[in-house]
Amino acid sequence: MIDSTTGPPSSTFNHLAFQYPTKGRTAGLILRISRAAVAWEAGKPLVIEEVEVAPPQAMEVRLKIHFTSLCHTDVYFWEAKGQTPLFPRIFGHEAGGIVESVGEGVTDLKPGDHVLPVFTGECKECRHCKSEESNMCDLLRINTDRGVMLNDGKSRFSIKGKPVYHFVGTSTFSEFTVVHVGCLAKINPAAPLDKVCILSCGISTGLGATLNVAKPKKGSTVAIFGLGAVGLAAAEGARIAGASRIIGIDLNSKRFEEAKKFGVTEFVNPKEHEKPVQEVIVEMTDGGVDRSVECTGSVNAMISAFECVHDGWGVAVLVGVPNKDDAFKTYPMNVLNEKTLKGTFFGNYKPRSDLPSVVEKYMSKELELEKFITHEVPFAEINKAFEYMLKGDGLRCIIRMDG
Amino acid sequence: MIDSTTGPPSSTFNHLAFQYPTKGRTAGLILRISRAAVAWEAGKPLVIEEVEVAPPQAMEVRLKIHFTSLCHTDVYFWEAKGQTPLFPRIFGHEAGGIVESVGEGVTDLKPGDHVLPVFTGECKECRHCKSEESNMCDLLRINTDRGVMLNDGKSRFSIKGKPVYHFVGTSTFSEFTVVHVGCLAKINPAAPLDKVCILSCGISTGLGATLNVAKPKKGSTVAIFGLGAVGLAAAEGARIAGASRIIGIDLNSKRFEEAKKFGVTEFVNPKEHEKPVQEVIVEMTDGGVDRSVECTGSVNAMISAFECVHDGWGVAVLVGVPNKDDAFKTYPMNVLNEKTLKGTFFGNYKPRSDLPSVVEKYMSKELELEKFITHEVPFAEINKAFEYMLKGDGLRCIIRMDG
Repeated sequence: MIDSTTGPPSSTFNHLAFQYPTKGRTAGLILRISRAAVAWEAGKPLVIEEVEVAPPQAMEVRLKIHFTSLCHTDVYFWEAKGQTPLFPRIFGHEAGGIVESVGEGVTDLKPGDHVLPVFTGECKECRHCKSEESNMCDLLRINTDRGVMLNDGKSRFSIKGKPVYHFVGTSTFSEFTVVHVGCLAKINPAAPLDKVCILSCGISTGLGATLNVAKPKKGSTVAIFGLGAVGLAAAEGARIAGASRIIGIDLNSKRFEEAKKFGVTEFVNPKEHEKPVQEVIVEMTDGGVDRSVECTGSVNAMISAFECVHDGWGVAVLVGVPNKDDAFKTYPMNVLNEKTLKGTFFGNYKPRSDLPSVVEKYMSKELELEKFITHEVPFAEINKAFEYMLKGDGLRCIIRMDG
Repeated sequence: MIDSTTGPPSSTFNHLAFQYPTKGRTAGLILRISRAAVAWEAGKPLVIEEVEVAPPQAMEVRLKIHFTSLCHTDVYFWEAKGQTPLFPRIFGHEAGGIVESVGEGVTDLKPGDHVLPVFTGECKECRHCKSEESNMCDLLRINTDRGVMLNDGKSRFSIKGKPVYHFVGTSTFSEFTVVHVGCLAKINPAAPLDKVCILSCGISTGLGATLNVAKPKKGSTVAIFGLGAVGLAAAEGARIAGASRIIGIDLNSKRFEEAKKFGVTEFVNPKEHEKPVQEVIVEMTDGGVDRSVECTGSVNAMISAFECVHDGWGVAVLVGVPNKDDAFKTYPMNVLNEKTLKGTFFGNYKPRSDLPSVVEKYMSKELELEKFITHEVPFAEINKAFEYMLKGDGLRCIIRMDG
């Protein structure tokens, strides 16, 4: 059954136009036709297609995506270098949307709620969800290999009856998508979705790595490895925490000027030094920084980030995802000198419990998001967002789904 | 000037007999003749000699050792395999004693105070001492190469005018020794020195690794690598913290029976398993232990200790001192899964600020020390203590200085 009602807000495809379900409507039972940017094969430009989006099943929610943005992880899996390729697939996992309909058993969300879909979830039942320390939900933890929904092992997307696969349970490069309720953070409806959509992944990851895991004290020194969007969000966290010195490390000196906006006070380009960058930082800081946050995924940067923290109290936080077979190698004495090495995943934020408060940090102007948004494109031009990222041009590109 | 007054408590060497200085006496200005167990060369039995002990200089304290015990670190440096040998030397760093005289500027201690000398110090002035997190004092941090006192770069010990070197600033295998005031913890005079002397090093190291660094919650699971004195003290810490399962790992299954006294509930001998011990532990615990404490110094055990903790919240604490060139190697994904790796030094106890409260834990019967004491010898038979340790026989051997 195809729903072709029209209504506000408008869409360029008339038959896709969105109307919030009213009491008694059966939005949850109907197929939606949705414009979606389909990746037909690895590394090839996405193609805007009309895709059928099945109704949400038990514990699932169908939502209309209003804004999405592009993150490195989309590009990494789209390029499909080093993982099992799964195509055709709808990528996208940083987004802001509005609930259209809910499946059986969903009580936390209702049509009209504003939500951020998240690539990892929070079932609220497992040991991880019940632990104060973990956000690595047993049921809904990120799974980049799975292209189907948990409930029935099938995709909700299809083109002429043939399945199109999901990506990390979000697939936000589609006007309509189906997401497990545990992967949706209900946020303040007053928050502008074209800004807070970037909190779905990268920005929260960097911010939380600093605020929730590194936890620098006011006045402390912080080193940030990698000045991409995640690293700059980590710097933004250090700025919010009141760090006195924020040292940015990047192989690309062009990033230094931009980084000043995020509170970075000093810069080191490892290429400009003969000695290992950790030694440079230790000298600059009379023994090492209080905290370091590694946001590149390079195993050498990880080792540097660990070795540049001060003995006695230094904490190094690893954010970047390394290659599978990389080995982290250090002299154990570096550990015994009372340094701490911590990993983090999505900035240790529990998606449903914690993201709403990150949105509030933006609403109260404590957290600045505008400076992360360097580009904007209409949905029809989504491939431009890929080009910007591949060129290393800018930080976040917002994709307007109505365009 | 030689002091040859006699007085209680008695000594077998009449001229060494100890009398507490009374007001107006000049104990601080005189040489003491002291029986000391001198290591003349690497690996050769110690020889009891009469040694001259110079008066304490500025910020130094001379004390009479009543009981000392032998720790692996003494044996390691006595064997002098792999470090610069420094002989003749007076080893010993676990002890209980009473202040005999104090040098200029010492206000925290006075003759008659009961103290535990510690191999690392607390100046209370440096960044580490002022940090809540560190006990790695800049001024008085352990230095195993230095055989002299900081004040003048000379030894306070001599035989016929020739210097005999200090060891880690304590040299407790001597009836009298001179120690920097920053390396002395003033303790409850009611505490029996023949028991609490073992808190000077190994026992506090293991206990603090668990209580101060791993911090297991009540009901949690803890793995202890290495069931020597330090590992059993770590287990004792887990018992005190209310751990529900304490898994002991050792290559010597003979240690398992003894370990039950320390709260160890389960045992794994890696030699009895084909798969790596971390996998065995992960299977036993449905995903990993909450905390692990590594007390062997083997780099492979360190890696196992890190990899056997649960993702999301697991914390691995490294206590054992590895060989200098050992490399700690793991897949970075083990870190990114929100595991934490922490090193500790002397159980993160600040010697002067924190040790008195550890003594009180014993006084209140929360901490049991008797079970660590498996042997006792008179000072004249100190080489027997080395033999017990080299054979792996028992845990701690108390050396009575009056015998």
